[in-house]
Amino acid sequence: MPETKVKKSEDFNEWYNEIVELADLCDKRYPIKGMNIWRPYGWKLMNHVDRLIRDEMIKTNHQEVCFPLLIPESYFKKEEEHIEGFGKEVFWVTHAGLTPLEERWLLRPTSETAMYPIFSLWIRSHTDLPLKTFQIVNTFRYETKQTRAFIRVREIHFFEAHTCHVDFTDAERQIQEDKEIADHLLQKLSLPYVFSKRPEWDKFAGAYYTISIDVLMPSGRTLQIGSIHQYRDNFAKPYEISYETEKGDHSFCHQTTYGMSERLLGALVGVHGDNKGLVMPPEVAPLQVVIIPIIFKGKEQTVLETSRTLQNELLEENIRSFIDDRDITPGNKYYDWELKGVPLRVEIGPRDVEKNALTLVRRDSGLKKSIPITNAEQMIKTELKDLEHILYTNAEKLLKDNMHQVLTIEEATQKTGIVALPWCGNKDCALEIENVLEGNTLGEPIENAGCSEHCPVCGSPAKTWMRYARSY
Amino acid sequence: MPETKVKKSEDFNEWYNEIVELADLCDKRYPIKGMNIWRPYGWKLMNHVDRLIRDEMIKTNHQEVCFPLLIPESYFKKEEEHIEGFGKEVFWVTHAGLTPLEERWLLRPTSETAMYPIFSLWIRSHTDLPLKTFQIVNTFRYETKQTRAFIRVREIHFFEAHTCHVDFTDAERQIQEDKEIADHLLQKLSLPYVFSKRPEWDKFAGAYYTISIDVLMPSGRTLQIGSIHQYRDNFAKPYEISYETEKGDHSFCHQTTYGMSERLLGALVGVHGDNKGLVMPPEVAPLQVVIIPIIFKGKEQTVLETSRTLQNELLEENIRSFIDDRDITPGNKYYDWELKGVPLRVEIGPRDVEKNALTLVRRDSGLKKSIPITNAEQMIKTELKDLEHILYTNAEKLLKDNMHQVLTIEEATQKTGIVALPWCGNKDCALEIENVLEGNTLGEPIENAGCSEHCPVCGSPAKTWMRYARSY
Repeated sequence: MPETKVKKSEDFNEWYNEIVELADLCDKRYPIKGMNIWRPYGWKLMNHVDRLIRDEMIKTNHQEVCFPLLIPESYFKKEEEHIEGFGKEVFWVTHAGLTPLEERWLLRPTSETAMYPIFSLWIRSHTDLPLKTFQIVNTFRYETKQTRAFIRVREIHFFEAHTCHVDFTDAERQIQEDKEIADHLLQKLSLPYVFSKRPEWDKFAGAYYTISIDVLMPSGRTLQIGSIHQYRDNFAKPYEISYETEKGDHSFCHQTTYGMSERLLGALVGVHGDNKGLVMPPEVAPLQVVIIPIIFKGKEQTVLETSRTLQNELLEENIRSFIDDRDITPGNKYYDWELKGVPLRVEIGPRDVEKNALTLVRRDSGLKKSIPITNAEQMIKTELKDLEHILYTNAEKLLKDNMHQVLTIEEATQKTGIVALPWCGNKDCALEIENVLEGNTLGEPIENAGCSEHCPVCGSPAKTWMRYARSY
Repeated sequence: MPETKVKKSEDFNEWYNEIVELADLCDKRYPIKGMNIWRPYGWKLMNHVDRLIRDEMIKTNHQEVCFPLLIPESYFKKEEEHIEGFGKEVFWVTHAGLTPLEERWLLRPTSETAMYPIFSLWIRSHTDLPLKTFQIVNTFRYETKQTRAFIRVREIHFFEAHTCHVDFTDAERQIQEDKEIADHLLQKLSLPYVFSKRPEWDKFAGAYYTISIDVLMPSGRTLQIGSIHQYRDNFAKPYEISYETEKGDHSFCHQTTYGMSERLLGALVGVHGDNKGLVMPPEVAPLQVVIIPIIFKGKEQTVLETSRTLQNELLEENIRSFIDDRDITPGNKYYDWELKGVPLRVEIGPRDVEKNALTLVRRDSGLKKSIPITNAEQMIKTELKDLEHILYTNAEKLLKDNMHQVLTIEEATQKTGIVALPWCGNKDCALEIENVLEGNTLGEPIENAGCSEHCPVCGSPAKTWMRYARSY
């Protein structure tokens, strides 16, 4: 069987570009750059990820809303930093039919400026707070850099939570909750991650501070898959989101947002895949078990019956399974489902049926084992859990092996992945390091960031550790 | 308790406009006309409708995809009738950031022209057929008429199925399946409907023929909530969707589409609601049962415990329920949930607990009954089924009472709702009738349309019955 043309271990970026299409996640042949087509398998995967996000949102009492895609220019322009940050990367609608619009509208790059004028109508009193909302929608950004499926696109499948609070402290509590949500979700995706507080000059346009959530890809480059923002009252003031306190005063809300995108899929593909294709964590795998009946003439009946019985048992345990009874060779079927990353393959042949057994093949390790048919669904559940665990362990090793803490730029240049260096707090020193490392300032660790070393550029006492990495 | 300001029975259209906001379905204060905000309750309702649609699609082997929102002008212009039909009602993106685009892009009003150039890449051989896809996305149309929530909006929550077939006959089979899907879905929504074959001059731009699915609103006006189109090879030719037959020849595909929109919500609101607010069919009610503990001092504990026990039992039966323990009067709670149309209300007070009973109140009839707590969940299931049935029966009566078959225009002018008249096949005669009735030509019945009468305008022998109605 052919593997992918390019090996993951040899050229990660090329392998990635190839596998997303080969595995039927997307089709990149749409004529607008960076706007890809979600094929059924990719869309199912995205929907499973969305489902996990929704579950977390419901558990934490967030309400799902859906705001319009188009934002009037005047709404957008109320917060100055925001328009400065996004103004150059939005798409403009200027005509309706043959008629020029009186005011231009933009396609949301994110929804602050669509939502906040309405929040100011929804929030009247402290009893309306906290307001915790989210939506899952597509957003649009005019990317000028090279596009890459799921990682850098112009139409982005996007999750955004927006919350309003009585004060800074309550908004900080929300950020704590967001970090826990991110942790739950990324555990289920077997994706270890790092939180970093982004530097002042690279925080979200309008935010008081930004925490980025980064995953390390096997290429040694980081992928920012989400971010959490503390806005303080930076947006509440221009958008007039205020409330009456218990005492009858008026006060501006403090706000937070939490965003993630289809980059989560990019991370799933990049971190877990191998030379044979995708490897899907069971929680989000569109198919968790594929059953391949091994047909010999005259024995079709028992093999197919056994397959159907197993599928029904799996169904009762809510395990997503499929019987591949296509008229092609078993080898071709193995190839297809390995490419698509189905966690477990079950082979059932006449000899298995005679022995009251079936053959189980793990997608991660390729290991085969024969297990009894009785209670097979329990064994399969255990194997799925174990596979999830192994995926996490492997990804964690990748991350740990590629996180370094060093004192000098020279040491830093010899490392791959994420490198932390002492930092004096001076932007120019960080930019100098970016320059030498040909990377970006990722941000400071959000916990235990204290550093008693010296800045490797200017020699001043360091205020914190600062992380650098090449990133997507 | 105040009811809605306007009574449904007195001014349907005003009642409708008021109730959609009062019941928290949407917020119409967004500054772009016809682009409303989905509030959490409305969005949940829409999501339940989408879930029913997805279930039907999965059962019939349709694959869900998601195509880009933006369509290049050159793609759009390939099918002549289509561009003629939609050209004046699309929104144009002309700039990205500060840069004018080389080619204008439009926001999809529907996705034929985005999908079909890609279908021509996906389909190579007869083994690739039938191709059955669908997507649930937002579409955009520049409506110049008066907008109305869910019924006439400019950003439309839209379902569209697109299929490709080896020939006309197989496409006709698909249309038969679509009609069955519509029937299953609309039964679950307790919405009786009529299929009509639209007249030539009012079919979908590019279609060979169009079947409209119309619901009758209590105002006597019809609401088209969906349509099914036979395209023949009208799109396949300009978009070059062809395949290799078993014999090795090349042949163009025949195509169909099936679309429905958030108008389904408009129909749910309009058909089932009453002076007190919405009445939600249980299948899609965001909440099916609201439990109201009637608290008296000293008895809180037993009442709340009984409420929680009931809720757990309902949960096990997958019945969506909620305990409203807010610190407001029971009367205020009744008002809120009646407005939102929750099918069943359960009241549990200290006396109920003593009697091992609870009080059940039906949203449709307002009837109260005391039922034993033991196995209450079974009784509740039965009541929900009965309520669904009653909603259907009432809506069916409304439709039947307002469908008429007459021979003269004079008789027609005395009827409300849908009026069928003999038709000679001449467009001018139909337009004359439209004119007199101040209505629209809805289309001919798709079954048993034969008519041996004479056209009431020109007196020629009629070819068919033709329906007319005032419509939204």
